[in-house]
Amino acid sequence: MMSEHVYKIVKLVGSSPDGIEPAIDNALEKASDSVRHMRWFEVEETRGHIEGGEVAHYQVVLSVGFTLDD
Amino acid sequence: MMSEHVYKIVKLVGSSPDGIEPAIDNALEKASDSVRHMRWFEVEETRGHIEGGEVAHYQVVLSVGFTLDD
Amino acid sequence: MMSEHVYKIVKLVGSSPDGIEPAIDNALEKASDSVRHMRWFEVEETRGHIEGGEVAHYQVVLSVGFTLDD
Amino acid sequence: MMSEHVYKIVKLVGSSPDGIEPAIDNALEKASDSVRHMRWFEVEETRGHIEGGEVAHYQVVLSVGFTLDD
Amino acid sequence: MMSEHVYKIVKLVGSSPDGIEPAIDNALEKASDSVRHMRWFEVEETRGHIEGGEVAHYQVVLSVGFTLDD
Amino acid sequence: MMSEHVYKIVKLVGSSPDGIEPAIDNALEKASDSVRHMRWFEVEETRGHIEGGEVAHYQVVLSVGFTLDD
Amino acid sequence: MMSEHVYKIVKLVGSSPDGIEPAIDNALEKASDSVRHMRWFEVEETRGHIEGGEVAHYQVVLSVGFTLDD
Amino acid sequence: MMSEHVYKIVKLVGSSPDGIEPAIDNALEKASDSVRHMRWFEVEETRGHIEGGEVAHYQVVLSVGFTLDD
Amino acid sequence: MMSEHVYKIVKLVGSSPDGIEPAIDNALEKASDSVRHMRWFEVEETRGHIEGGEVAHYQVVLSVGFTLDD
Amino acid sequence: MMSEHVYKIVKLVGSSPDGIEPAIDNALEKASDSVRHMRWFEVEETRGHIEGGEVAHYQVVLSVGFTLDD
Amino acid sequence: MMSEHVYKIVKLVGSSPDGIEPAIDNALEKASDSVRHMRWFEVEETRGHIEGGEVAHYQVVLSVGFTLDD
Amino acid sequence: MMSEHVYKIVKLVGSSPDGIEPAIDNALEKASDSVRHMRWFEVEETRGHIEGGEVAHYQVVLSVGFTLDD
Repeated sequence: MMSEHVYKIVKLVGSSPDGIEPAIDNALEKASDSVRHMRWFEVEETRGHIEGGEVAHYQVVLSVGFTLDD
Repeated sequence: MMSEHVYKIVKLVGSSPDGIEPAIDNALEKASDSVRHMRWFEVEETRGHIEGGEVAHYQVVLSVGFTLDD
Repeated sequence: MMSEHVYKIVKLVGSSPDGIEPAIDNALEKASDSVRHMRWFEVEETRGHIEGGEVAHYQVVLSVGFTLDD
Repeated sequence: MMSEHVYKIVKLVGSSPDGIEPAIDNALEKASDSVRHMRWFEVEETRGHIEGGEVAHYQVVLSVGFTLDD
Repeated sequence: MMSEHVYKIVKLVGSSPDGIEPAIDNALEKASDSVRHMRWFEVEETRGHIEGGEVAHYQVVLSVGFTLDD
Repeated sequence: MMSEHVYKIVKLVGSSPDGIEPAIDNALEKASDSVRHMRWFEVEETRGHIEGGEVAHYQVVLSVGFTLDD
Repeated sequence: MMSEHVYKIVKLVGSSPDGIEPAIDNALEKASDSVRHMRWFEVEETRGHIEGGEVAHYQVVLSVGFTLDD
Repeated sequence: MMSEHVYKIVKLVGSSPDGIEPAIDNALEKASDSVRHMRWFEVEETRGHIEGGEVAHYQVVLSVGFTLDD
Repeated sequence: MMSEHVYKIVKLVGSSPDGIEPAIDNALEKASDSVRHMRWFEVEETRGHIEGGEVAHYQVVLSVGFTLDD
Repeated sequence: MMSEHVYKIVKLVGSSPDGIEPAIDNALEKASDSVRHMRWFEVEETRGHIEGGEVAHYQVVLSVGFTLDD
Repeated sequence: MMSEHVYKIVKLVGSSPDGIEPAIDNALEKASDSVRHMRWFEVEETRGHIEGGEVAHYQVVLSVGFTLDD
Repeated sequence: MMSEHVYKIVKLVGSSPDGIEPAIDNALEKASDSVRHMRWFEVEETRGHIEGGEVAHYQVVLSVGFTLDD
């Protein structure tokens, strides 16, 4: 966590068929439309859906911190 | 959790004198004014107030997921 | 949690064949014989016993707060 | 937990549009086809799906204990 | 938690070189620009940054509840 | 935790407008009327009430250990 | 947890130089002076003190349930 | 956890009047009738029943890992 | 979690020298021999073995949900 | 947590009769003799000792991160 | 936790074929070569390995506190 | 966890712009300068920094076990 600011933390769920990091990317990309000044994230849960015995897509639940004061 | 979308999760507290399920309903009904496309909820805490030795009302703390991309 | 008082918190287990809310009621009713001025409760665990493949009774573990200073 | 036996604990998810207790009932009823001698349950999570701003159905995640030695 | 309302809970990070209580104050003061009707807070984490072997500033992660229905 | 005794642990909530340490003091002072031989405490939760965008008072939930055998 | 009663749960710390089970025994023996009708216990923490590089005594923190209604 | 295999983890409850280790032994002995290739265990909970102010028997909740691929 | 079914949840450990996602794949592939109708997974722990200062293989502990009623 | 470095985290307990912040200061001051390049801390537990019904001193359990690569 | 010192906490894993207490002893005996002034321990996890359906050895994960200032 | 040794567990934070596995690698590579005989790791937290709406680098908090007795 960076310092000397007031942050708000939002919780997001992102998803991707390609892996955990792409699921993080998708959550951040979508959120960046409405949430500016995102500074850090934390992965709260890693999960996914299975079809035909294989991973159909990964899901990550993220806490994302952004500055209120910029 | 449903799939292939980006979700945001908000935390709500609902209340009812009538039971746990009505307290969930009240939280969702009130939230639906400002939060559209709610898809799932999770009960984080169940609590309540006591008056005269009896439950005056129940309170539930909910995490509610809704789609950002619809 | 209400304010400006000192509270003590006790942990109780209540039980009922009729559901979760009646199990909460039974715990509070019994406790009210010895614990006055109960103000709030929190459900710590929800569990139960099974007989013949069906719920025989529900059990709730409650934390109950009451004022020391009234 | 009852005593003097060896138990196995399984984790089940039940669901109902009618409330938390009916979701518990549905999980136990379905499980009783393959799991005999169930003795107790514990609610691990309470959640649900939302459609049109209202609860479409409740879901409970249960740990269920049954005897191995009967 | 106070009663008979629907609350929303937001998560904030505040910071101060002067101590834990001032870090709480700074988070609330900044948030009060955009979040009205705040009613209670809970400290989720207490942390800080170190420079030259001493605390440079304290950081608190807060959950803050406010009414939706006032 | 000190040693060679049997302790009982009680859970208390204290409150003060002046800060976290004064809220701990108030809980202990009030409890000392009925609980003798208190030896240690642990802060389980730190929270508070907000009025007009500022902290109205702090609340601490404490576990307090005291000797049964003195 | 046994059934069809209302229980109260107390938290105790017991201690013994001889091992974990004797520390449990000491907590229960001491508590039985003031708490009747104890029915079950749960070990919340296991810890101890070290002197000269060896365990001087073990400490267990127990939750103990007893009936209110017998 | 040992390596290069796929494991399944089951949850068992064992019991003994003689102590924690014998309760672990009893769970494993009983389970070994139906679960082969057990490799490791983890104690999730330690608890027990009390009769006449003394431990009647100990109960342990175990997670037990066994290989699927041998 | 998908809806309107009864699910059973099993806990699996998968392993791969190639990364976290391949370890998930290996657990699911092996399990699909005996567990049909797997629908979702959740990563409970991520760990691994080290040889010569480098990761020899990754291990994931998964909870996997599958339908009982298909 | 600051970035682009490798950190090691140590766990410390500090103590002070004067409050929570002075207990943090004492832990850091003492540790700075042997641990250089400390960058952040997190309060894991807040506790204390009681004498004569009053706080004799506060204790904080801290996780402290410092750089390995400076 | 004893008082008026600064402590450092280290995490150790000990092992013994003979039981939980001997596994604690082995961890402390080995650690006492490099860690002086150990004062208390806490058992974080209890686990073990299984061979031929029986416990081959027990493992305990301990947090051990020792003084920095003696 | 492998067996029949005494292990010490250290907590490390590693970082990489390239993903979670490279962040694990970087932590282990750096630590291997001062910590020999590392045997296993566990990922405690996964997080990262965001710049311009994208992940700037990933951070993992690891517990790493190594033998004291080799």
